[in-house]
Amino acid sequence: MATYRQSFSIETRGEVQAIDVTDRVALAVKTSGIRDGIVCVFTPHSTAAIVANERERGLIERDLPAALERMVPRGVSYAHNQAGDPNGHGHIRAALLGPSVTIPVADGRPMLGTWQQVLLLELDVRKRTREVVVQVVGDGAANV
Amino acid sequence: MATYRQSFSIETRGEVQAIDVTDRVALAVKTSGIRDGIVCVFTPHSTAAIVANERERGLIERDLPAALERMVPRGVSYAHNQAGDPNGHGHIRAALLGPSVTIPVADGRPMLGTWQQVLLLELDVRKRTREVVVQVVGDGAANV
Amino acid sequence: MATYRQSFSIETRGEVQAIDVTDRVALAVKTSGIRDGIVCVFTPHSTAAIVANERERGLIERDLPAALERMVPRGVSYAHNQAGDPNGHGHIRAALLGPSVTIPVADGRPMLGTWQQVLLLELDVRKRTREVVVQVVGDGAANV
Repeated sequence: MATYRQSFSIETRGEVQAIDVTDRVALAVKTSGIRDGIVCVFTPHSTAAIVANERERGLIERDLPAALERMVPRGVSYAHNQAGDPNGHGHIRAALLGPSVTIPVADGRPMLGTWQQVLLLELDVRKRTREVVVQVVGDGAANV
Repeated sequence: MATYRQSFSIETRGEVQAIDVTDRVALAVKTSGIRDGIVCVFTPHSTAAIVANERERGLIERDLPAALERMVPRGVSYAHNQAGDPNGHGHIRAALLGPSVTIPVADGRPMLGTWQQVLLLELDVRKRTREVVVQVVGDGAANV
Repeated sequence: MATYRQSFSIETRGEVQAIDVTDRVALAVKTSGIRDGIVCVFTPHSTAAIVANERERGLIERDLPAALERMVPRGVSYAHNQAGDPNGHGHIRAALLGPSVTIPVADGRPMLGTWQQVLLLELDVRKRTREVVVQVVGDGAANV
């Protein structure tokens, strides 16, 4: 059994932006040498999220932003916005979507489906630098 | 420490259908021989989800479909629907609910509450074959 | 590799209440002696949730309850409410938010961001006793 961790940073341009990090996750798992186990992809922020879904342009550039705006609208009043950035809606959306996705690992690869990519979602109102942590735990000849 | 994985397939009949997979998950954990650790229940699809909640008929057959329809309605326009199946709403619902649930394992069993079942949710517009992956990581006399 | 688990109980006062359990989670990780790996914070209930977000008063006392009421209103009809407690909306909210958060562990600490706390959310209509399970899996001199 072994553990392996890799982190990387991503510059975003503000809400709602979806960035495909699947290749980075797959590379971290490969580098770990871990063949079987799990990988947790986590972002240590409260106005960003990690989800797994299809990286199809209409879906992530138009449908997802529109759906989030219907569910958690920017335009209503947020008590949080009196404390700083006008990003109360971003916090609620992040709590809803979650900061991580956990995926089984088999044969040294995350077991994602064909139409399933790992996406970092920027939910804040302005451009940010986001950290993504890829933590692998499992069996195999870990080269660490 | 050990890892153990089991996969199975489920035939669904289309949205919104909740299928209780708790017994399959418990059996996989028991078969693993792992006594303490975690189990990740994952579905490698972008229009399905895994959630933990009560398998009560009114809740899963009527309230959950109605709530999803209020939050992410079928009837609005989705850019994604120009690319193929009219399942844009299913993708958004799946991103929201998530493809996995991770549960602590104690004494060889998932630590679910009495009113807490593991449910596969079919969120696509038509019947599908869905894979469910149960990945256990932990301590114990793993018979693998 | 090692596993370590700690559970604790929390008395709540009914919906929507957010209770910061970050210190309890950090203490469990420290006590485990595990330096690198993951920690899963899980609640075995179907009308409660675990989320990671900022413990800012306006956000958790006003914005989050208001947002949940907009997305999953109390006032609509729930089939589940004919079976017992009038908490159908609480079940749906719990399914949406999820019973757990999984966080990478580095240097013996959960890798949470500065504005990211682990919150137990009470989503039921009345006061309850809630269990929280903290399960750590990873590497290090586990003193168990």
